[in-house]
Amino acid sequence: MATLGIDALLRDFDDRLPRGLARAISWAESGRGAELIARLYPRIGRAMTIGLTGPPGVGKSTLSSALVKKARSLGKTVGVISVDPSSPFSHGALLGDRIRLTEHFVDPDVFIRSMASRGHLGGLSGATADAVMLMDAFGLDVVLIETVGVGQSEIEIAELAQTTLVALQPGSGDSIQVLKAGIMEIADIFVVNKADHPMANQLRREIRGMMEMLSFSGWVPELVMTQAVSGEGIDDLWRAIESHLVYLNESGEIETKRREAFTHQVRQLALGRIQRRLARELHEHPRTDLDPYAAADAVLERFNAVGEDGDAPDFAVRPRAVVKGLT
Amino acid sequence: MATLGIDALLRDFDDRLPRGLARAISWAESGRGAELIARLYPRIGRAMTIGLTGPPGVGKSTLSSALVKKARSLGKTVGVISVDPSSPFSHGALLGDRIRLTEHFVDPDVFIRSMASRGHLGGLSGATADAVMLMDAFGLDVVLIETVGVGQSEIEIAELAQTTLVALQPGSGDSIQVLKAGIMEIADIFVVNKADHPMANQLRREIRGMMEMLSFSGWVPELVMTQAVSGEGIDDLWRAIESHLVYLNESGEIETKRREAFTHQVRQLALGRIQRRLARELHEHPRTDLDPYAAADAVLERFNAVGEDGDAPDFAVRPRAVVKGLT
Repeated sequence: MATLGIDALLRDFDDRLPRGLARAISWAESGRGAELIARLYPRIGRAMTIGLTGPPGVGKSTLSSALVKKARSLGKTVGVISVDPSSPFSHGALLGDRIRLTEHFVDPDVFIRSMASRGHLGGLSGATADAVMLMDAFGLDVVLIETVGVGQSEIEIAELAQTTLVALQPGSGDSIQVLKAGIMEIADIFVVNKADHPMANQLRREIRGMMEMLSFSGWVPELVMTQAVSGEGIDDLWRAIESHLVYLNESGEIETKRREAFTHQVRQLALGRIQRRLARELHEHPRTDLDPYAAADAVLERFNAVGEDGDAPDFAVRPRAVVKGLT
Repeated sequence: MATLGIDALLRDFDDRLPRGLARAISWAESGRGAELIARLYPRIGRAMTIGLTGPPGVGKSTLSSALVKKARSLGKTVGVISVDPSSPFSHGALLGDRIRLTEHFVDPDVFIRSMASRGHLGGLSGATADAVMLMDAFGLDVVLIETVGVGQSEIEIAELAQTTLVALQPGSGDSIQVLKAGIMEIADIFVVNKADHPMANQLRREIRGMMEMLSFSGWVPELVMTQAVSGEGIDDLWRAIESHLVYLNESGEIETKRREAFTHQVRQLALGRIQRRLARELHEHPRTDLDPYAAADAVLERFNAVGEDGDAPDFAVRPRAVVKGLT
């Protein structure tokens, strides 16, 4: 990594030039985030971070756009991270959805970034956490992370964001799935979007019914009805987000949230490097002479032995692993 | 693990009692598969393994059921592994889908098992691979692994099965997503189900068009039109599966497939243990005094140092990690 490069980048960053932030995120995406984050880390912790998840078609991008508008009307600068899911079967509507954010493309105080999720390994990419930190360090007041709720990204988003919004749509049977998958645990605020839908009230009753079956210590999830297209309910939603933030600060839970986000990121970083090393081990010593369990033992033994030998354990970023499917 | 337990289990297994297979899979699911697999490993490699994936609503369970019927009509015994996705937003129809397999519940030569996918970490659980091996060792002729194509399980299924069927539905925009996500690489056979749909022919043309844009070395994916509900096209589908198997054997690619399935399983096993150890490290030495990259370095250093000290690196299965979200 050229030090010249990072200094120029940080100058742009300090001058609050969007290209500085854009390049910083690109560096993080290409695995060159370490020095950058180390230098900018002291500046983070000021932004309000909001996660938004929900099934395809619920209107997340319209909700995002409405929230951006609201935040802008309060004079706040906003960053939006839009995570594209890796699922091949998610939705043809994705590109169309993006378009809804275009009304903010010309606003210099709104920074929008699409990021791919990790693909084979699933979940949010490590660069998503970097992007949140970079937007925070850049001085954006609000960082909104939007992800389609497929796979486990909806769980991870709750580890990254201070406040997690789970958007559900009427007439879809979502509520049952939410209960089944324990998504109650991650929702700070439920958003019933498309509140004009004939089954909207039924969904509200179902969510309320679910909540009555559970006991909460601390924050009890709020439920807000919105029509993101017309902007209806967005003020209520913003109020709910703010009161959650007040709760986090007054209860001290904000620190737990920060620690969780930190741990999440450290785990993803460490795991990424371990996986690359594991891929190399498997490629170089596949041990197809053993059964899979015995082979796993053998691989792990070597994994440790490499450390024992004093042979430099190589955790550096390497070209894409040769073992098919592990990237 | 009580040796008495495993011997009784293996007796049931040898007597081809379904409860022997059921218990064996349960053992694998609860992390006690090692000794079992070691003992049964020499018996595997005989079954025909078929993966079936596709978006929710495409009719996978009806297709599964039709394939089971076909295999039974040829006198083959069948195992079905139905992987429930971890996505909370997948589909309310899941339970309904399961019901379509009930017509085979009373057939003693059809063994059906539902398995949860891994949840937080995404993808197929390690126990799925164990279940395939156990069904194979049990002597079932055909093992069908059915999974909803959300997250990365649709990629993993191709690593486990000899022949991968990708089912698509007309009028859904699936074909574009398939191309975009590189799912072409995993499909040995495309199944256009609901062939009576007005847009079925268009989907067929789209898939053909996609294939023309690519060059294949070896097997060129077949495309079969089915109406699983009425059984139409299932004979063609079975023929396509059989000719793919003939191709695999004649080209020698069957060995590559086996090695991939093996590597996949070893990687999952090793990774699972590493992740548990990592969770412990993060819990015991969170290093919140550092930035995330530096903390990851510190964690990895300790990770190796534990080996260097001669301190027994503990890869054993432990109770659920305390670090929230990593299970």
